[in-house]
Amino acid sequence: MTSTEIIDVASLTQLSVDAFRNAGLSLDDAEISARILIDADMMGLSSHGVVRIPVYTSRMWRGGVDPNAVVSIDRRSPSLAIIDGNNGLGTVVGSRALEVALAMVAETGIAYAGCRNSNHFGALAPYGLQACDAGFILIAGTNASTTMAPWGGTETRIGNNPLCIAAPCADGIHIILDMAMSVAARGKIRAAQKAGLPIPEGWATDGSGTPTTDASEALAGFLLPVGGHKGSGLSLAVDILSGVLTGASFLSDVSSWSENPDAPSGVGHFFLLIDPGKLLRPDAFAAAMDRFKSIVLSTPSANSTSPVVLPGQREQECRRAAEKDGVRLPGDLLASIKQLARGQARAVN
Amino acid sequence: MTSTEIIDVASLTQLSVDAFRNAGLSLDDAEISARILIDADMMGLSSHGVVRIPVYTSRMWRGGVDPNAVVSIDRRSPSLAIIDGNNGLGTVVGSRALEVALAMVAETGIAYAGCRNSNHFGALAPYGLQACDAGFILIAGTNASTTMAPWGGTETRIGNNPLCIAAPCADGIHIILDMAMSVAARGKIRAAQKAGLPIPEGWATDGSGTPTTDASEALAGFLLPVGGHKGSGLSLAVDILSGVLTGASFLSDVSSWSENPDAPSGVGHFFLLIDPGKLLRPDAFAAAMDRFKSIVLSTPSANSTSPVVLPGQREQECRRAAEKDGVRLPGDLLASIKQLARGQARAVN
Repeated sequence: MTSTEIIDVASLTQLSVDAFRNAGLSLDDAEISARILIDADMMGLSSHGVVRIPVYTSRMWRGGVDPNAVVSIDRRSPSLAIIDGNNGLGTVVGSRALEVALAMVAETGIAYAGCRNSNHFGALAPYGLQACDAGFILIAGTNASTTMAPWGGTETRIGNNPLCIAAPCADGIHIILDMAMSVAARGKIRAAQKAGLPIPEGWATDGSGTPTTDASEALAGFLLPVGGHKGSGLSLAVDILSGVLTGASFLSDVSSWSENPDAPSGVGHFFLLIDPGKLLRPDAFAAAMDRFKSIVLSTPSANSTSPVVLPGQREQECRRAAEKDGVRLPGDLLASIKQLARGQARAVN
Repeated sequence: MTSTEIIDVASLTQLSVDAFRNAGLSLDDAEISARILIDADMMGLSSHGVVRIPVYTSRMWRGGVDPNAVVSIDRRSPSLAIIDGNNGLGTVVGSRALEVALAMVAETGIAYAGCRNSNHFGALAPYGLQACDAGFILIAGTNASTTMAPWGGTETRIGNNPLCIAAPCADGIHIILDMAMSVAARGKIRAAQKAGLPIPEGWATDGSGTPTTDASEALAGFLLPVGGHKGSGLSLAVDILSGVLTGASFLSDVSSWSENPDAPSGVGHFFLLIDPGKLLRPDAFAAAMDRFKSIVLSTPSANSTSPVVLPGQREQECRRAAEKDGVRLPGDLLASIKQLARGQARAVN
């Protein structure tokens, strides 16, 4: 284990922006990308935080992602848009799409913005937070390179395509569900392998599709979808909404950036927004969400030390704490980002 | 086990329409309701088929559901509508809402119709089929009376709120995901109890929230959500979209019609449609869906006797067979429906 260091958000933002600028991003795009990754770190979602900066910048240097891509917007109707990322960084493409969707929903009450020719765009929760802070309900998702087999199959042809459903609450702690479709994240299996530990049953299979508790065999095999055919079906559904409907790549046509770092990944995303104030009186919606939260939060808990929580609650509480206290990062990661910010390193990853 | 009988779809439709007419529904509403339930039987979803007719009609006789309810439509914007079921039968309210959403999506390319003051509306798959046959993508859901505890809790406060995501395919076999949020349906636990068998681990807990394999203890306890916190979160998200956003009841405020058959249940549903032809050229979308299907269906299978299938595929194949061969029903159920059709019985259930 490496030592950890705490860094305040403003300093981490400056370092991240500088690192992205050195890889060729404009100031605007660097700031957007830094915000999304640092939001994830602040929410405790460190696997999707600034740990991605070495990979993102490395892909830009290698030509796999175009830092100068001009994102093009095709407004198909007052509520529908296709955003072509032209192989830009996913955080830039996703943010631009959410911005377009926010402009449409403010006019019409509902909006769908689909992205094609994009790349990894970080975690969904920061986008959910932004939509909720603006007062809208968000349904969003992305496809990804393949890590699971369709249910009953023995070849990875579906991604761990996460889905986000988020709803705004008047007290500022929104409900933000952000879930991938595997029982456990690949990162947890990698951690077990490093620690020499077995993994729980039900997480993964070996390369032949046989369930395994051996972490190394699991990494050579497939993640298992949550609920078997249900998680497999949800992964397909998210891929249709983010890959097929946008004209992006989908399923095994999405290029893996770990295997092909120099090639565009062709990822697709979607952002669907609804304005609750156009369906109910704003005070009626806020009051109903308030009652909704209180019914869930007052449920007697199975464990007296861990009360029932709402999706995204811990992450938002964590984020508020990080605003004051800063973010804790592995020392070697922070050192890498500092090098990238100073222009002293390139292909760190 | 009771004996079974096969009945052709036209005869079953006539009996079902007559049974609904005898309970006070208009001819139109009786035909709509018969179609939705029989579609489910034809798709092999017998738990949501005509087995519901005795319950639906009984609730109308007892005053728990109003057969004469006038469904009111509030078009909030070109793409948004709230449908007030005024405590009508769920199949009537749901069908009217889908019809309104279909009219809106044809104009604007995207539509959300939310229902309040509704009741149980059958399975989602028949609505998915109708939307896909019309060429649209459907995201739909409903809330339901509570059968699960929020993750970490020990009191039933969330429903098994199903979610449907369906996409049209040019060959007429659409992708129709229709999933509830529990690992297993309550009906399967009831069947195990009847057969004196234990249930698999992970299906349910007893009344104290402790995992159990005893079917009777499970029925006195809670269903477990698929993927733990993930299924619990999805149930909440579907409830927000179908209960909160529509002004319906939600969570434990939804009245259980088995416990309170004389009271309105206050259920909410939502239907969200997108026109792929407004985002991509229609031939481009159809070609992409075709490729999507072929990638999934050609996945090598773990079991040579059961190839990988797409969500809803078996159900639609089953439906096509039933068009020719009819539907197989338990003899005592068919006898009940005949009695109801002849007006010879009332409170069968």
